[in-house]
Amino acid sequence: MKKLIIASTSTLYNGSYLEYLMPELQQFFNGIKKILFIPYARPGGISHDDYTAKVQNAFSNIGIEVTGLHSFEDKHKAIAEAQAIFTGGGNTFLLVQQLYRFDLIGSIKKAVEQGTLYLGTSAGSNITGLTMETTNDMPIVYPPSFKTLGFVPFNINPHYLDPDPGSQHMGETRETRINEFHQFNSQPVIGLREGSWLEVTGDTIILKGMLNARVFKAGKNPEEIVPLTDLSDLK
Amino acid sequence: MKKLIIASTSTLYNGSYLEYLMPELQQFFNGIKKILFIPYARPGGISHDDYTAKVQNAFSNIGIEVTGLHSFEDKHKAIAEAQAIFTGGGNTFLLVQQLYRFDLIGSIKKAVEQGTLYLGTSAGSNITGLTMETTNDMPIVYPPSFKTLGFVPFNINPHYLDPDPGSQHMGETRETRINEFHQFNSQPVIGLREGSWLEVTGDTIILKGMLNARVFKAGKNPEEIVPLTDLSDLK
Repeated sequence: MKKLIIASTSTLYNGSYLEYLMPELQQFFNGIKKILFIPYARPGGISHDDYTAKVQNAFSNIGIEVTGLHSFEDKHKAIAEAQAIFTGGGNTFLLVQQLYRFDLIGSIKKAVEQGTLYLGTSAGSNITGLTMETTNDMPIVYPPSFKTLGFVPFNINPHYLDPDPGSQHMGETRETRINEFHQFNSQPVIGLREGSWLEVTGDTIILKGMLNARVFKAGKNPEEIVPLTDLSDLK
Repeated sequence: MKKLIIASTSTLYNGSYLEYLMPELQQFFNGIKKILFIPYARPGGISHDDYTAKVQNAFSNIGIEVTGLHSFEDKHKAIAEAQAIFTGGGNTFLLVQQLYRFDLIGSIKKAVEQGTLYLGTSAGSNITGLTMETTNDMPIVYPPSFKTLGFVPFNINPHYLDPDPGSQHMGETRETRINEFHQFNSQPVIGLREGSWLEVTGDTIILKGMLNARVFKAGKNPEEIVPLTDLSDLK
């Protein structure tokens, strides 16, 4: 049975890396000794080794060992044998390009559908949707496809930002961008504010954290949903 | 000889469409009676006809007739015969996808290199750089390539935004995103703030408007440049 945590962000303002999620992760990873970390999104260009060390540092607190997928010769085997997978944030275009480069989409899908635990933050959450077409990231590299893992039957917009009423900036708001997405795509989009996450258990999807989320459906007005809303029927 | 205006935005806060640029455009389009408008970026999903009417409305003030490229059966002929081309803002992924769909990149390049005037705003400016890989837009559709027109030998980041020191949002700043771009790409990027534009006359490139711009080069600290800086050597 699929089990995922799909988090908007790894880090809250004034918090340390994964700090706000740790109580939840301690439960989620209960009994797990090792996590396979996918470092390919490389936030700010950090190296795979440094990124993995940062994640190891956070998980040391709950006694979990972290290994980076980049360090395995046979990445398919590493994924198939993993008890749990964590894909960190950074640049979604880069992450998806690397997943296709090593032909890992199918392997990750198979493992998670068979019960390997999956944690995503930011870009690592984006790829759990049907496509990466609602990322906020800059297209710094050209991936061979925008199709992603499809663990949920909709798209994710992490780091969801409400329009700033005081702003004099004329670039599109996040809501305008998602409306533009819906001119060409029919799947719903969930805007997850920083501090929210989705908990997926089999076919059940629940909004967790303290904040409302915003659900966008093609041709409809967006809706605010409260924590603990069951999103299992969203598609 | 190439002649372009590459503007960060069409519209300033509290201004009307193209208003702040109109004095400049009146000079730039001196003697021109007709502009061919490329409406494919469709901001907010506006129709090609409505977008063209909006542009016509702005140019009526200076007695210029606007026709939309979408209304021509033979788009290559329309481009080859145009006195001036204006590509409006919206979604860069959509714009580039459409340009490739109708195989227009070569036609526009040829016309502009032979002296057809070119005005771009926002997405229409983005595509004058080497690639669209420093756009701020959401990847709502999948273009067959990120390569663009290359009228300048660097990349454009329109609507450039300085980090907000009061922000508690944890998404990447624009500068972080451009630094990530430079992990994988060597060309410089110019961040054009809203109200700035580049004036290109042959091989001469000048920063215009009242604001500084920010120049990013791979592996170097970013530089602020003042209005009227000559950027002809930037590559």
